[in-house]
Amino acid sequence: MPETDTQPGPYTPTDRTVPTRSAQRASYDRALVHSILDESYVCHLGFVRDGAPVVLPTLYGRIGERLYVHGSTGSRPLRMAGRGETAPGLPVCLTVTHVDGLVLAKSAFHHSMNYRSVVVHGTAHPVTDPEELRTALDALVDHVVPGRSYDSRPGNAKELAATAVLRLDLDEVSAKVRTGGPNDDPEDAALPHWAGVVPVQRRYGTPVPAADLDPAIALPDYLAAL
Amino acid sequence: MPETDTQPGPYTPTDRTVPTRSAQRASYDRALVHSILDESYVCHLGFVRDGAPVVLPTLYGRIGERLYVHGSTGSRPLRMAGRGETAPGLPVCLTVTHVDGLVLAKSAFHHSMNYRSVVVHGTAHPVTDPEELRTALDALVDHVVPGRSYDSRPGNAKELAATAVLRLDLDEVSAKVRTGGPNDDPEDAALPHWAGVVPVQRRYGTPVPAADLDPAIALPDYLAAL
Repeated sequence: MPETDTQPGPYTPTDRTVPTRSAQRASYDRALVHSILDESYVCHLGFVRDGAPVVLPTLYGRIGERLYVHGSTGSRPLRMAGRGETAPGLPVCLTVTHVDGLVLAKSAFHHSMNYRSVVVHGTAHPVTDPEELRTALDALVDHVVPGRSYDSRPGNAKELAATAVLRLDLDEVSAKVRTGGPNDDPEDAALPHWAGVVPVQRRYGTPVPAADLDPAIALPDYLAAL
Repeated sequence: MPETDTQPGPYTPTDRTVPTRSAQRASYDRALVHSILDESYVCHLGFVRDGAPVVLPTLYGRIGERLYVHGSTGSRPLRMAGRGETAPGLPVCLTVTHVDGLVLAKSAFHHSMNYRSVVVHGTAHPVTDPEELRTALDALVDHVVPGRSYDSRPGNAKELAATAVLRLDLDEVSAKVRTGGPNDDPEDAALPHWAGVVPVQRRYGTPVPAADLDPAIALPDYLAAL
């Protein structure tokens, strides 16, 4: 396990990670944050360009207390983060959200969502060390499909040179979670509307082999298990 | 149909909506953009606070060429957007992403995702007209569950005063779509790794009635149809 995984205790709240609303839903629990991050592989990465916000969906992986965000060397956030060890880095906000349920209340006002989200504030830096880059790319692949990096051809020198990865430390981090049923007002209890929660789930369909795949290559166990 | 729905032709590309990478995946087609927006209800809203990016998951709805983003009057983006007709508004980037498939290639480098995303750049303004606010809130509820606004108690004056909605015009908009199988290099064709696409779908589970729901209230058809 990476050394950074051994850090104990919750993340320290900051002005940016204490929400102004529904503060009771906020959490700084390290295990909760990790579990929310590990259940997805697409984040929404925000950065500032010419003074205006930009939000792009991006693949990420986690190793201990570090996130790795994927990009090509030509992508805007990667170019903006610089390419050298001395680059100042790119201020980012990285957000991951799971929608777990539609919360239907008797009143329109109390309609809500059950969700789990993590918001990470920090400065992203390009990964320049070849060994860290290789490890990060494996983590990115394995974050999407655990075990896959062992069952694909590793990147060669040309591919590694064309791939850029940003590193973002988990330091200024918060989770936000809503669970449970609707919170209707007592005076609405007798209204004739259905109320409750519609669960929302992510589901994997039957894998579709590539058109030119040798039929002798069976579906690997780690995909069948999805 | 709202008058704004009748606008013809694609969105006009701008410097911000022409991607630096995978430009062939970009589209400005109005119907495609609408269909991607209408299939979800949670966006990631980016804005700039004290010079740094912030990205928050937020509910939204669409009426014609306008998006409405939900918030409470106490939330940061709503307060930052101001409350009066003369407020300058809040520069935002609103992004919606559907993950449609995991693309597994024989080489780690060509692993990818099938996805559809929309990125909207613009300035969000608070909705101050009571009639527009009411219409926008109905649209937000119906965006999540079509028909639901007719089967719940509408907001009263106190609730409307506690609810804030931001309006964002669809003007500087692009979609980005990847479909199909992996694009492996020909020299990797004989490698023994499985390659193909694992479809990813959103699924609704069996609705769970609220603990205090009168058992005589049946599940409405519009929920059974989900």
